[in-house]
Amino acid sequence: MTYNAGNYDVIVVGAGHAGIEAAYASARMGAKTLMLTLNLDMIAFMPCNPSIGGPAKGIVVREVDALGGIMGKIIDKSYIQMRMLNTRKGPAVQALRAQADKPVYMQEVKNIVENEENLTVRQGMVNSLIVEDGICKGVITESKAAYYAESVIVTTGTFMRGKVLMGDLEYESGPNNQRVSVKLSENLEELGFKLTRFKTGTPPRVNSHTIDYSKTEIQPGDENPKSFSYETTEVISDQIPCWLTYTNEFTHEVINENLTLSAMYSGMKRGTGPRYCPSIEDKIVRFNDKPRHQIFLEPEGRNTEEIYVQGLSTSLPESVQHEMVRSVPGLENAEIMRAGYAIEYDAVVPTQLWPTLETKRLPGLFTAGQINGTSGYEEAAGQGLMAGMNAAAKVTGKDPIILDRSQAYIGVMIDDLVTKGTSEPYRLLTSRAEYRLLLRHDNADMRLTEIGYDYGLISEERYAVFSAKKAQVEEEKKRLNKTVVKPTEEVQDIMKSAGGVPMKEAVKAYDLLKRPELTYDYIEKMIGQVDLSEEVKEQVAIQIKYEGYIKKATEQVDKMLKMEDKKIPADIDYDAINGIATEAIDRLKKVRPLSVGQASRISGVNPADISILLVYIEQGNIARVAN
Amino acid sequence: MTYNAGNYDVIVVGAGHAGIEAAYASARMGAKTLMLTLNLDMIAFMPCNPSIGGPAKGIVVREVDALGGIMGKIIDKSYIQMRMLNTRKGPAVQALRAQADKPVYMQEVKNIVENEENLTVRQGMVNSLIVEDGICKGVITESKAAYYAESVIVTTGTFMRGKVLMGDLEYESGPNNQRVSVKLSENLEELGFKLTRFKTGTPPRVNSHTIDYSKTEIQPGDENPKSFSYETTEVISDQIPCWLTYTNEFTHEVINENLTLSAMYSGMKRGTGPRYCPSIEDKIVRFNDKPRHQIFLEPEGRNTEEIYVQGLSTSLPESVQHEMVRSVPGLENAEIMRAGYAIEYDAVVPTQLWPTLETKRLPGLFTAGQINGTSGYEEAAGQGLMAGMNAAAKVTGKDPIILDRSQAYIGVMIDDLVTKGTSEPYRLLTSRAEYRLLLRHDNADMRLTEIGYDYGLISEERYAVFSAKKAQVEEEKKRLNKTVVKPTEEVQDIMKSAGGVPMKEAVKAYDLLKRPELTYDYIEKMIGQVDLSEEVKEQVAIQIKYEGYIKKATEQVDKMLKMEDKKIPADIDYDAINGIATEAIDRLKKVRPLSVGQASRISGVNPADISILLVYIEQGNIARVAN
Repeated sequence: MTYNAGNYDVIVVGAGHAGIEAAYASARMGAKTLMLTLNLDMIAFMPCNPSIGGPAKGIVVREVDALGGIMGKIIDKSYIQMRMLNTRKGPAVQALRAQADKPVYMQEVKNIVENEENLTVRQGMVNSLIVEDGICKGVITESKAAYYAESVIVTTGTFMRGKVLMGDLEYESGPNNQRVSVKLSENLEELGFKLTRFKTGTPPRVNSHTIDYSKTEIQPGDENPKSFSYETTEVISDQIPCWLTYTNEFTHEVINENLTLSAMYSGMKRGTGPRYCPSIEDKIVRFNDKPRHQIFLEPEGRNTEEIYVQGLSTSLPESVQHEMVRSVPGLENAEIMRAGYAIEYDAVVPTQLWPTLETKRLPGLFTAGQINGTSGYEEAAGQGLMAGMNAAAKVTGKDPIILDRSQAYIGVMIDDLVTKGTSEPYRLLTSRAEYRLLLRHDNADMRLTEIGYDYGLISEERYAVFSAKKAQVEEEKKRLNKTVVKPTEEVQDIMKSAGGVPMKEAVKAYDLLKRPELTYDYIEKMIGQVDLSEEVKEQVAIQIKYEGYIKKATEQVDKMLKMEDKKIPADIDYDAINGIATEAIDRLKKVRPLSVGQASRISGVNPADISILLVYIEQGNIARVAN
Repeated sequence: MTYNAGNYDVIVVGAGHAGIEAAYASARMGAKTLMLTLNLDMIAFMPCNPSIGGPAKGIVVREVDALGGIMGKIIDKSYIQMRMLNTRKGPAVQALRAQADKPVYMQEVKNIVENEENLTVRQGMVNSLIVEDGICKGVITESKAAYYAESVIVTTGTFMRGKVLMGDLEYESGPNNQRVSVKLSENLEELGFKLTRFKTGTPPRVNSHTIDYSKTEIQPGDENPKSFSYETTEVISDQIPCWLTYTNEFTHEVINENLTLSAMYSGMKRGTGPRYCPSIEDKIVRFNDKPRHQIFLEPEGRNTEEIYVQGLSTSLPESVQHEMVRSVPGLENAEIMRAGYAIEYDAVVPTQLWPTLETKRLPGLFTAGQINGTSGYEEAAGQGLMAGMNAAAKVTGKDPIILDRSQAYIGVMIDDLVTKGTSEPYRLLTSRAEYRLLLRHDNADMRLTEIGYDYGLISEERYAVFSAKKAQVEEEKKRLNKTVVKPTEEVQDIMKSAGGVPMKEAVKAYDLLKRPELTYDYIEKMIGQVDLSEEVKEQVAIQIKYEGYIKKATEQVDKMLKMEDKKIPADIDYDAINGIATEAIDRLKKVRPLSVGQASRISGVNPADISILLVYIEQGNIARVAN
């Protein structure tokens, strides 16, 4: 016997990195939102590494921020170290990475969500969904509260039927010994959802006092730290270093000798772990010719001595973990404060989702984050934001929002998930993005702020700043295009100081900027300064320098988008199309792509199938399946 | 198959308020100490109200500080509000009470224990004790780590076979949805320990934004906040108020109507709850003529909107909690963020302990805190400190430390527990102390610092400050005793301004200070100032003003101590004593008091029995039980 505990527009189940973005976006779009969490003290907890960002992931954080999400703002307030990666490489691979102060990060988020209008935050264990007429209408908690809503977003992370594994120790648990969610898993299965079993893990944490840092290499933060959020105005100058050390043959010996004791190698059937964030056992086995692996020693915060041993993720028995840790230079006397462990959990097979992250089987139900088979805080945040926007859009009458593969890493990720599915925890990598030259750290605002603004997630004030920046970039590009630089003695001296070959004739400043050795600063020296922010200058320089590549990529995008524009009705009857291979038909029926573009990315669907599909769609006489 | 995970002098199981004092004291006494906790993120967690201190309890915190413990220091660094209670009453009932910032409190403690030399802090679930030759030699964790030590202190709080109860919802869990400890309970039973089942509870927390504070009364902190610790030099001036409101007939109606749904009134056999910290259901039932009960609205910290609804502790179903909360003025629209719940857990019957908190059954094993049947953070801290000191004393060759009932509330509590046991969660009250005039907030240092210093818990620096204070008090008392005040016009004016009757003849300043209307300040005006701290002046004034009462109390103490000095051998054979009533023999055999004094406080042991025992002991020919 349940009781009616309230009516909402949107309910978010879970308050991890997906849940908080979903709930925050939904509430700020004007939807009356409820966020339910198993433990109010664990909101925005980072169960794994104390860092946010890195290649691809860092760009996702920028995208989340450009759309009006919170991850970027919070990490900017709570980092202990900030680094821009790949500064010597091109702008397409540059990305920010921050070390987070975990407790501070959590507290900042808790504070924000508790104070958000339209958002109710409550502790509760959701046991089942309320389904009426095949539509998801709400949730029921273990305490018999029935909450009703038009949209429900489930973001359970690794909590569904979570199981902690360490050697032969095994117990039901979410991460960090939190309560596990069992009944919701069962309920999803009852509702016909296909679940899969994934696994992830963490390394041991050691006490900083027991580390001999003299045997490691210091990894300091940037002297002039950049920010994730476009709204951040102050940086944290008091930074804390990380430290780099390596495994060695002794470490590998310890692991090899005890491999059968690992929860993953002990012969028990186990969930699939992340290929791109492997355990140390995985690394030793898969790269057995590699003499050493990097180990980063990362503080978990300013106010704790716990050091995260990044790179030693493991489910070996605790006794072996001690040996393993102590084989590493600098850690000879290290005291493990908490041992590493693997966690196995239920995920939803993501091909059951539309690109809006709404489930196909149960309208009104969305899923986001690790439950969709991804790994990583940033991947979770990106999905959470999109699910939140779409859930609220449904309620407030706005159009659904689907980012395409040329707009954002978030678009790449969601398209990959819903189109191809994933056979292991999915991690974003730059290599997954075919248009990565367009999906840069620097231009996330240019790509997405407009959208965030349209959906009510970007303030007028911020939008004005953004519009001004955009206009300034265009104006400055025009100015450079109009300004001819003559090879005066002064100009030649500047060329020389930049290490370039002397100019032979007058050239437009615009074209001069394309020369690799000439940064915007040199051009400024030649033609005089304009009062522009560093961000504007950077944007101008990148747009001009990489104009050729960008143009090429944009042409490819246009072709791709043409295929995306060829919409396929959701209820098309593939069986009525002659000539498509049987395997392709099966895949198409499973994924139900929304466009020919999406169809073309389904593995098992060949170009020949696509040609037939294209002709069929263009003929216009499309057979539909009966409802 | 376990592995040897290390040898220590002292192992502390648990890192709550008992565990941290035990571990910190032990480590600072030079014992190599290991503290094991189920979750490193929950060290020093406050599962119940966000406050420390209050009547009797506040004095315990002072005592802990005077002995060299940490609770006072930490709350001084983390309070959001500080109040001295009963300032208009005598010094014996004055006590400090602080509202704590829960997350800050936790972080400060974690920081201290992680940085303490001699102390290793580690996450681990202890499943059993290592027992050899009837002596406790260590612990074994679920991850098969065997840790060896000479003393083990178990401080499991409410975690042993913890069960959360709310209406008919019931699940295995420690407080705040933490992992529960099951196997250690079973192990203690196997080892022959008698366990009992107790219960405690918490009220709901509501979101501050949903409270109408205009319907409540403000409860601000003191303008000049005092500190718990004698070492604190800076106070926190930025304080946050609490708010007072009341239940009413509607509240009581809701509760009465739903009483059968409460986990405690539903007919199921349940653990016993605390009489002096009852649930709202208890209060309504037991005081059914009372038209209203106080409700304090207490912030859980500076950085959170969660408000603790002090006074509404409950295990009613969540649905009823909503109704109940909303019946209270100011809470008409309150949103519950987490519902209240009761927790039922295993405690050790404390008469199984020596007054050192070592168990009688298993030498080397100590228990402290809520596991011994108490309730309250302060009670836990006091026991933890004593257990830590005794465990380390055993290892370092120091004498055991037992505080008597005239020395400290801690002494009263431990004597009550080990002598009388407790049939419900034991809470310290001023009424439990027969010498409460001696057990004051102001003189905790005078009573105990010497002891803390002897055990190595008070630094030389602090001891020097203490000694100087003590000397100054004595000197000032001497000065006042030597100084004769003559009834000059000026003096009579001062008398008048103090509201006193005019002096008739010259009087010693010392005797003048005994007059109720004359504070030390007036005396100073009459005889001139000496450069003394406020603390010294206060001490001088109290000692002189209450000299008569103190003297009387001290005489009673002397009598009591004479009885405490009549030691009884631990292995005395009570069956060999003729004339003692059978019931008394049973009780004496169970408690095995260490002195005739302790024996006299055992319920069921009558004065006649004590007379016989006394004579028997004094004869000197004492029969012993065979080992």
